[in-house]
Amino acid sequence: MKKLINNPTRVVEEMVEGYVKAHPEFIKQLPENDRALVSVRPTKENKVGILIGGGSGHEPGFLGYVGEGMADGVAVGNIFASPSPDPIVEVTKAIDKGAGVVYLYGNYAGDVMNFGMAAEMADLEEDIEVGMALASDDVASAPKDEKEKRRGIAGEFFIYKAAGAAADFGYNLDDVVRVANKANENTRSMGVGISPCYLPQTGEPSFEIGDDEMEIGLGHHGEPGIEKGLLETADHVADRLVKDILKDIEINAGDQVAVLVNGLGATPRMDLYIVYRRVEQILSERGIKIYRSYVGDYITSLEMGGCSVTLMKLDEELTKTIDHPVNCPMFVQK
Amino acid sequence: MKKLINNPTRVVEEMVEGYVKAHPEFIKQLPENDRALVSVRPTKENKVGILIGGGSGHEPGFLGYVGEGMADGVAVGNIFASPSPDPIVEVTKAIDKGAGVVYLYGNYAGDVMNFGMAAEMADLEEDIEVGMALASDDVASAPKDEKEKRRGIAGEFFIYKAAGAAADFGYNLDDVVRVANKANENTRSMGVGISPCYLPQTGEPSFEIGDDEMEIGLGHHGEPGIEKGLLETADHVADRLVKDILKDIEINAGDQVAVLVNGLGATPRMDLYIVYRRVEQILSERGIKIYRSYVGDYITSLEMGGCSVTLMKLDEELTKTIDHPVNCPMFVQK
Repeated sequence: MKKLINNPTRVVEEMVEGYVKAHPEFIKQLPENDRALVSVRPTKENKVGILIGGGSGHEPGFLGYVGEGMADGVAVGNIFASPSPDPIVEVTKAIDKGAGVVYLYGNYAGDVMNFGMAAEMADLEEDIEVGMALASDDVASAPKDEKEKRRGIAGEFFIYKAAGAAADFGYNLDDVVRVANKANENTRSMGVGISPCYLPQTGEPSFEIGDDEMEIGLGHHGEPGIEKGLLETADHVADRLVKDILKDIEINAGDQVAVLVNGLGATPRMDLYIVYRRVEQILSERGIKIYRSYVGDYITSLEMGGCSVTLMKLDEELTKTIDHPVNCPMFVQK
Repeated sequence: MKKLINNPTRVVEEMVEGYVKAHPEFIKQLPENDRALVSVRPTKENKVGILIGGGSGHEPGFLGYVGEGMADGVAVGNIFASPSPDPIVEVTKAIDKGAGVVYLYGNYAGDVMNFGMAAEMADLEEDIEVGMALASDDVASAPKDEKEKRRGIAGEFFIYKAAGAAADFGYNLDDVVRVANKANENTRSMGVGISPCYLPQTGEPSFEIGDDEMEIGLGHHGEPGIEKGLLETADHVADRLVKDILKDIEINAGDQVAVLVNGLGATPRMDLYIVYRRVEQILSERGIKIYRSYVGDYITSLEMGGCSVTLMKLDEELTKTIDHPVNCPMFVQK
């Protein structure tokens, strides 16, 4: 394991400190809890507050998506571990402007438990209404008839963007939750891992893989995929990922999609664009229209090698959310 | 070597194809030469055209910086190799709107030769006035009294941003060149490498390094640094990089700087922000004011591990260029 860090047990604190110092015009830590960060621009009165969060190590997810057009605040967990309820509650209190707060997070046991507890505390102790929407876009993480077991991966980006836009449009709590759930329903991702990341505290690789192997369907924390095999060409990988996605969701000729080819941390943009090239070919051949594309590192796993492909099927409402401008330190869309 | 590619000899073609397909609202290939790309928004009449270029493998550099507020066109070379004069001339013809074109590139022998030949061809055959400005920000690449030998590394980002803004401000050719040269004069970078990248065509690592080593001053193509040693903490690395920069350029208490902590491709943003944290501490201790910070992958070397620190000393004019909004596929600033 080779990293540019100081003390392995303090990587999250030092990252957050560096982040807040680098972007003071965007974000600040709350005095009550240094894992609770909010936008320096106060949430507008009567706007639904958007709270995101999860483990660290996925940067730009999640703290990088606090800013205009996306989230109002973030609760920061340890590496690949859910934040505890305390910072979630503190952010909730800070960003509630009378219209309630929506929690957005990936479908992982720890997150479900901690965000659930925080929601209860916010309701009982602070009388703040909380809505929740889970991301569960990873096709490989469970079969279609056990969809409630699926994990959230890079599609979280689309779901957070959709909900952030809906809140900006002035939607009420129920409608923001509805849009987030629709975005999740319409979004599918599938990834491939070719090299592991290393956990700072243990120095251990997140998964074992041979020098000539890839793992299809690998999770964002090294959760086992559905198939290990010899590393194939980018076209072959793209074919496989898109095929599995399109087996899982009906997207027909004439339909419009947003596409995300997401790097896991150590994959050059060159490779991501080569994968995108094939994704575009496949969708074009099927008559599926690409409305907007995102290629780059959006939700990473430290220095993991590999990528994922995400498709979000668009209707008129989701298209509006995709078009909505965003101004965050790690993601800007005009 | 593990990569998500198809044919190693066609990685640049396939990347460019994917890139243009992903961002058709930003960029297009010229019919005359598929390594010649220009913004889909025609250069404004009488605006100086900004042409950037260099080897591939540095993405977002250089094709990612074509768009509003930065470059009007790019000439794309092979991996780590200068573009030939032909695409440079084609871009020049496409973006000249009567005010001439400024070529911006790093100080490498191949680039100096090819951009020089292209400038001559543009002048003699097309009667287009061409100005040129080199980036040579890498402190480690030659001693101070041999500054003309220094290479351009991540500071190129600031220089291209400054010149792109100056052209937008309506400056004439000489003034755009003057601003680019001033940006270069005021910019210093220094990097550290901790793991190599792999050249697609040969599969060879760009440099050799031990499992517990780092190389200070390493170049963007694996050019040897000034010191190989045991991998140190992020704070120690930041101390060294900033110390060497501040030995080379006078930046005093009260001065303002722009800061770039640039990842080389495989370095998590977590690590970059931990490095930034220390850079900010050092500058604060010295009373140097940080006007704006950039942290992320701005000029990479495929999947190389490591980072660089860049400081640009600001005066009023350079501050204006830093503030200028940009809208490119790989970099947006509101």
